[in-house]
Amino acid sequence: MKQIETEIAQLGEFGLIEHITNGINIKNISTKKGVGDDCAVLNYTDKEVLISTDLLLEGVHFDLTYVPLKHLGYKAAVVNFSDIYAMNGTPRQIVVGLGISKRFTVEHIEALYEGIRLACEIYGVDLVGGDTTSSKAGLTISITCIGEVSKDEIVYRSGAKDTDLICVSGDLGAAYMGLQLLEREKIASVGQSDFQPKFEGKEYLVERQLKPEARKDIIENLRKNNIIPTAMIDVSDGLSSELLHICKQSNSGCRIYEDRLPIDYQTAIMAEELNMNLVTAALNGGEDYELLFTVPLHYHEQLEKIGGIKIIGHITKEDLGCAMITRDGNEIYLKAQGWNHLQ
Amino acid sequence: MKQIETEIAQLGEFGLIEHITNGINIKNISTKKGVGDDCAVLNYTDKEVLISTDLLLEGVHFDLTYVPLKHLGYKAAVVNFSDIYAMNGTPRQIVVGLGISKRFTVEHIEALYEGIRLACEIYGVDLVGGDTTSSKAGLTISITCIGEVSKDEIVYRSGAKDTDLICVSGDLGAAYMGLQLLEREKIASVGQSDFQPKFEGKEYLVERQLKPEARKDIIENLRKNNIIPTAMIDVSDGLSSELLHICKQSNSGCRIYEDRLPIDYQTAIMAEELNMNLVTAALNGGEDYELLFTVPLHYHEQLEKIGGIKIIGHITKEDLGCAMITRDGNEIYLKAQGWNHLQ
Repeated sequence: MKQIETEIAQLGEFGLIEHITNGINIKNISTKKGVGDDCAVLNYTDKEVLISTDLLLEGVHFDLTYVPLKHLGYKAAVVNFSDIYAMNGTPRQIVVGLGISKRFTVEHIEALYEGIRLACEIYGVDLVGGDTTSSKAGLTISITCIGEVSKDEIVYRSGAKDTDLICVSGDLGAAYMGLQLLEREKIASVGQSDFQPKFEGKEYLVERQLKPEARKDIIENLRKNNIIPTAMIDVSDGLSSELLHICKQSNSGCRIYEDRLPIDYQTAIMAEELNMNLVTAALNGGEDYELLFTVPLHYHEQLEKIGGIKIIGHITKEDLGCAMITRDGNEIYLKAQGWNHLQ
Repeated sequence: MKQIETEIAQLGEFGLIEHITNGINIKNISTKKGVGDDCAVLNYTDKEVLISTDLLLEGVHFDLTYVPLKHLGYKAAVVNFSDIYAMNGTPRQIVVGLGISKRFTVEHIEALYEGIRLACEIYGVDLVGGDTTSSKAGLTISITCIGEVSKDEIVYRSGAKDTDLICVSGDLGAAYMGLQLLEREKIASVGQSDFQPKFEGKEYLVERQLKPEARKDIIENLRKNNIIPTAMIDVSDGLSSELLHICKQSNSGCRIYEDRLPIDYQTAIMAEELNMNLVTAALNGGEDYELLFTVPLHYHEQLEKIGGIKIIGHITKEDLGCAMITRDGNEIYLKAQGWNHLQ
């Protein structure tokens, strides 16, 4: 079946915007007016408003050779929701800026928006506006997310205290290993028209890279159990980097334990296969979108009962620095990574 | 004097962010927490929250051959403020997404931020967050602006009524003529090392293109005079296109008068020099960032007393369509432009 391809110029700016924003239903009472005026209009009478923004550029943050546009849209939205959850908040609205080069058709942009809208559907977020323009060089996606949180429930990076437990949701390093796998198969596919990538037994890694989720469930479970973390951040640049942010802003140090790091068996197998250091992947891999948070010591037992959370260490006084205790009892000081793109 | 150039890699992501956000003072009570966590935190207890976003791409929206980075930063911020004023609101915060390719140094990004911060200073806006990343292709700027407005003062595009007066602030077509002039001088400069561009007598055009202002003053003057427009929009894509937005969303038609269009004499001289149609430039030029609004007929006299506003026509019933009456009494129907970039 031939796929229908529609040039964007056929619709024009306003036509395209109408086309992709058609049939958007407003889900939140805080959304007063969505797409269609100079601004979106929101109302947050009793709550604090949270704002987070992300810029995704083709060739830097994503490679369309192996990233389907629908997945890309989904991920672009979800990683922004993740920032709102990391403040113990609830995402409510997003605005989407899109720069589109000539090689993209209306159907491409539809697929991208399908992903964005699916994420909005699942997480209960309203798409309320944006800016769509042409680009000389590939696809640019800019998403700003607006969320809400009660004044007394907001969690900053700066509240961690000596002896607090350090917790992380889910597992680490899988998205990074997924990226390595996708890159390997991309290279293997060069020049082969009937290439079939080998993902058997590694589906989890591919999913973590292509379709991450924000940990809405963890936030909800903590709330149900009346636990408000003292500090929280989402793991986008790697555990090591995020933990250093918390410690720096909380004027504290930390000790985490290598044997407590949550790692999926697929991640471990892949690291073995690629002859990479597994702990480095877990510490610095990035794009996990798990929640890293600290809670007072007395929540220990209660936390054990909540699924999907692992206690990996504790906060210390500032002068002890930030270190990981290895399996053989050595202390390795943590280093900031981040921005592997630029260097 | 040799200019000091610092590679961005020397500072790294977190170093660069600290460097460019250093010493930001919070100006608004609605800003609870700015740069430095997963989100910015705002509080809007009594007001509606306005959100507007813009994506600016090198080679599409700006040409660094003749646009100084400081001016670019200033303009990028101001055009977003303009969207907030167009809802009769007040801009309060912005978040800035930046994609930077390797040819940019720390000093370049400083210059860009100097412009953004100057705009924030002048308009009383807080810079509260952002995302900074590398780019494969030039400079990408994404700005999202957050503003506020009272529920009973908000102005949409959709409220224009039959017989309402159509008003526009300032003058039209100058920014477009400024662009033509800058492009002409760019071409003339090719291969000449000691080239001096000819801007004498055309300074206003260059300024309108490189350093536009948002019409905060007009919003304040309307408020002082207790005038709330029935519909409003800012002129970014050209008068014609914006007027069609108002009419479409208000289910109405309009008549404007060619001889009422506000045009600066420098704009007229430049159009003559370039052998371009002056009225087309005024109707479709774009980037004027003036306010186009409608008010009930009885405000006629009061409006005349407020400086910088011109009544250019009136709203009609929908079935009369949208047209301009030319100097010789003919009716020309208005056409949508917009998105000249993509076609």
